Amino acid sequence: MIKEKIKVEVIGLELPIFKGNENVNIAELISQYPIEDGDIIVIAETLISKLEGNVIDKDKIIPSKEAIELAKKTGKDPKVVQVILDEAKEIVKVGKNFIITETKHGFVCANSGVDESNVSNGIKTLPKNPDESAEKIRKDIEKLTGKKVGVIISDSVGRPFRKGSVGIAIGVSGIIALWDRKGEKDLFGRALKTTEVAIADELASMANVVMGEADEGIPVVIIRGAKVPLGDGKGKDLIRPKEEDVFR
Amino acid sequence: MIKEKIKVEVIGLELPIFKGNENVNIAELISQYPIEDGDIIVIAETLISKLEGNVIDKDKIIPSKEAIELAKKTGKDPKVVQVILDEAKEIVKVGKNFIITETKHGFVCANSGVDESNVSNGIKTLPKNPDESAEKIRKDIEKLTGKKVGVIISDSVGRPFRKGSVGIAIGVSGIIALWDRKGEKDLFGRALKTTEVAIADELASMANVVMGEADEGIPVVIIRGAKVPLGDGKGKDLIRPKEEDVFR
Ligand SMILES: Nc1nc2c(ncn2[C@@H]2O[C@H](COP(=O)(O)OP(=O)(O)O)[C@@H](O)[C@H]2O)c(=O)[nH]1
Ligand SMILES: Nc1nc2c(ncn2[C@@H]2O[C@H](COP(=O)(O)OP(=O)(O)O)[C@@H](O)[C@H]2O)c(=O)[nH]1
Ligand SMILES: [Mn+2]
Ligand SMILES: [Mn+2]
Ligand SMILES: [Mn+2]
Ligand SMILES: [Mn+2]
Repeated sequence: MIKEKIKVEVIGLELPIFKGNENVNIAELISQYPIEDGDIIVIAETLISKLEGNVIDKDKIIPSKEAIELAKKTGKDPKVVQVILDEAKEIVKVGKNFIITETKHGFVCANSGVDESNVSNGIKTLPKNPDESAEKIRKDIEKLTGKKVGVIISDSVGRPFRKGSVGIAIGVSGIIALWDRKGEKDLFGRALKTTEVAIADELASMANVVMGEADEGIPVVIIRGAKVPLGDGKGKDLIRPKEEDVFR
Repeated sequence: MIKEKIKVEVIGLELPIFKGNENVNIAELISQYPIEDGDIIVIAETLISKLEGNVIDKDKIIPSKEAIELAKKTGKDPKVVQVILDEAKEIVKVGKNFIITETKHGFVCANSGVDESNVSNGIKTLPKNPDESAEKIRKDIEKLTGKKVGVIISDSVGRPFRKGSVGIAIGVSGIIALWDRKGEKDLFGRALKTTEVAIADELASMANVVMGEADEGIPVVIIRGAKVPLGDGKGKDLIRPKEEDVFR
């Protein structure tokens, strides 16, 4: 008989649907759930961003000449392109139907992370400072519950070489984000050579399986029982600087 | 009070340590665990590869001139470089201390996926045909248990733009691998535009959180309760063809 060695639970919470601008404290809401020590709480950036009020009314956007040009080239809505440009530090790659940028935060992703889905009306940008938001929410939850937790703010992104989107961690607090395991022993006592694990990204993908991308209505997921070291990891730890990236 | 909407379990199994060449039927071993309908069974490629006998004795490798050149350039062991070259269809990028290739299977990854960790002695290559192995194991488990399951063979890989490694699916059977959700409705009834989800990669990352990378000794993880459609997805579905990849 084969036995279990470890069991991790991934719990999707039932929450109201928000349009944005609601006066809601997300930490208070989450703290109503019986949080335990070591829980890792993953929150979809869409929820954070709506509550931050990062939803732009389309009627108020006047696309620049550059946005209109780029809209023609990509077949996108000029107003959406304007927001993408406003959110970008650099344009990384442009093609038919896509604009890949480096955002103001340093994330390389399609459309500067700008999205219209799961927003009632308008164009939604990414949270302004995901690491700060993660930290604030973590501290509030810890105060309200008396438990030590980790918080991750997640997004769904595409990537080179492979098709489809996966969950990544854009904001992190309370746990390690990039886990350096070099020097640890393998099963045969040999030291691992180059093993840096993007554990916060893996946790975000783990949560994303439960969140989904459509009308599941699950913007918050609790990961319980994962053996991830506490620490002061940041979403920024996972960004590969341009100078070190052979694919930029 | 906030309620749970869904709970997924991620269960790491207790298994023996294999050196390779053991005469073990992995499907029989896994089937000793009480498998349920809809379980997704994620297996580390390291385990599959060891049982396939894909471990090369270093003493038997004679590096070619090309391997010796590339070893100098990268600071790698010429014998390891020879195996990396043997496993590669194309060299994608070379630098100080790294060789990124497209493997014979079509995966773009560091060192053709060749690795020396968690192997007792020698250099381990990737499974020869991960989709076929996943299918064979799935069919055997279904026969032995009478349950419908999904099987994923996972590996840990690095990626552009972001630091650290994450779990991906190199072999898939019994479930969808690339989940096309275009046209499905969001929370406000609007159709999703471009949402293709690499669900098998997210499941592999989910499992990888439990597997770890060192001496955890957890090469098999059961994911129970995830709402992933059954289907005939393949690991190959997740490979972005070179012609469609703007970063190659
Ligand atoms: N209950 C609830 N769920 C939401 C809300 N906004 C988004 N979601 C859910 O959060 C999950 C992730 O949504 P998605 O649009 O993929 O967000 P992203 O990955 O952060 O860009 C999905 O299950 C959505 O249905 C909300 O206001 N309330
Ligand atoms: N019990 C057991 N665990 C193994 C064996 N080989 C690898 N593992 C474990 O499988 C997990 C993944 O190992 P890793 O080297 O990262 O494999 P990869 O991701 O497939 O390249 C870790 O928990 C290892 O300790 C084995 O023969 N027996
Ligand atoms: Mn998003
Ligand atoms: Mn998403
Ligand atoms: Mn491997
Ligand atoms: Mn691994």
